[in-house]
Amino acid sequence: MASTGSLITKKVIAYSLKDLLKTTPYQKISIKDIMSHAEYRRQTFYDHFTDKEDLIIWIYHQELTEIVEHFINYDHWTVIIKRLVDYFEKNKLFYQKTLLESYVFDAQLSTQLQQFILYLITHQKKETIKQIKPEEMADFYAFAVTGVIKNWLFHDCQTPKEQLTSSIITQLSFLIREK
Amino acid sequence: MASTGSLITKKVIAYSLKDLLKTTPYQKISIKDIMSHAEYRRQTFYDHFTDKEDLIIWIYHQELTEIVEHFINYDHWTVIIKRLVDYFEKNKLFYQKTLLESYVFDAQLSTQLQQFILYLITHQKKETIKQIKPEEMADFYAFAVTGVIKNWLFHDCQTPKEQLTSSIITQLSFLIREK
Repeated sequence: MASTGSLITKKVIAYSLKDLLKTTPYQKISIKDIMSHAEYRRQTFYDHFTDKEDLIIWIYHQELTEIVEHFINYDHWTVIIKRLVDYFEKNKLFYQKTLLESYVFDAQLSTQLQQFILYLITHQKKETIKQIKPEEMADFYAFAVTGVIKNWLFHDCQTPKEQLTSSIITQLSFLIREK
Repeated sequence: MASTGSLITKKVIAYSLKDLLKTTPYQKISIKDIMSHAEYRRQTFYDHFTDKEDLIIWIYHQELTEIVEHFINYDHWTVIIKRLVDYFEKNKLFYQKTLLESYVFDAQLSTQLQQFILYLITHQKKETIKQIKPEEMADFYAFAVTGVIKNWLFHDCQTPKEQLTSSIITQLSFLIREK
């Protein structure tokens, strides 16, 4: 398990990349740029990540885990959806720029959402639909939510976020019948 | 409306691009390559398309229309899903290579599927779910189906196509209650 110090270093590196993305295209940002912007030695990057892609995947995983998994036992799932949408709006530019770079990032986003939806199905559902495996159903709905969010991001979050949140909640509520 | 001659010319150009994609990366194929492989003059390309991206969007639209819309009044929707999956398997390489190039192609694929699903909801559904607009619902399910198909393509169609077809049909059948 990573130490707290290591987690902070990783977050600083992530923050540095996000900050550079505000002014520079993804492809033009080097590891050297990220590290000098963070005021770290270049080598420190490789103590934590293998390359830029690895860093992006870590950011997706870390930040979505912080929003979803850390709260899943405490908050109502609709609150988590609201928090997710807020997060994507705040990180609009980061996701707009990175999602277009590689299908790997797209797949990573779906995987994170799949785990959340799978949890909702298996923990909150009374009846199970017999014909279909929970994993397969979670995959399907995760792709739908990923698509809706991506479409919203690429249309520059024009739909008010309250409307998007409520639409996602309505669609998922057919799937999740609460105890 | 395009004449038959024009449609045939466009299809030859499309075939030429698809054939070149078997051996050459998308970015390395020029309009000149496409047209000389098709044994046409280069100028003929611009009589029909503005650029390579325009050609790809036309292929997505044309081929999915031929599979879906031309049959929608004659065939059962499950037969159309089966035909769609067959089509994507046959055109695996074309979609693998082009979907990665631009979010525009991804969005085009979702739009085509959205129209099909919207048709299914509005023509085959007895009860309407009051809380949600049919278009919004069709969007959501189209993103899900797009995601499932893309995931399958990028895993090189490893899941047998019968299994994928049946999974998509099961998921959509919760949405479409037949008359």
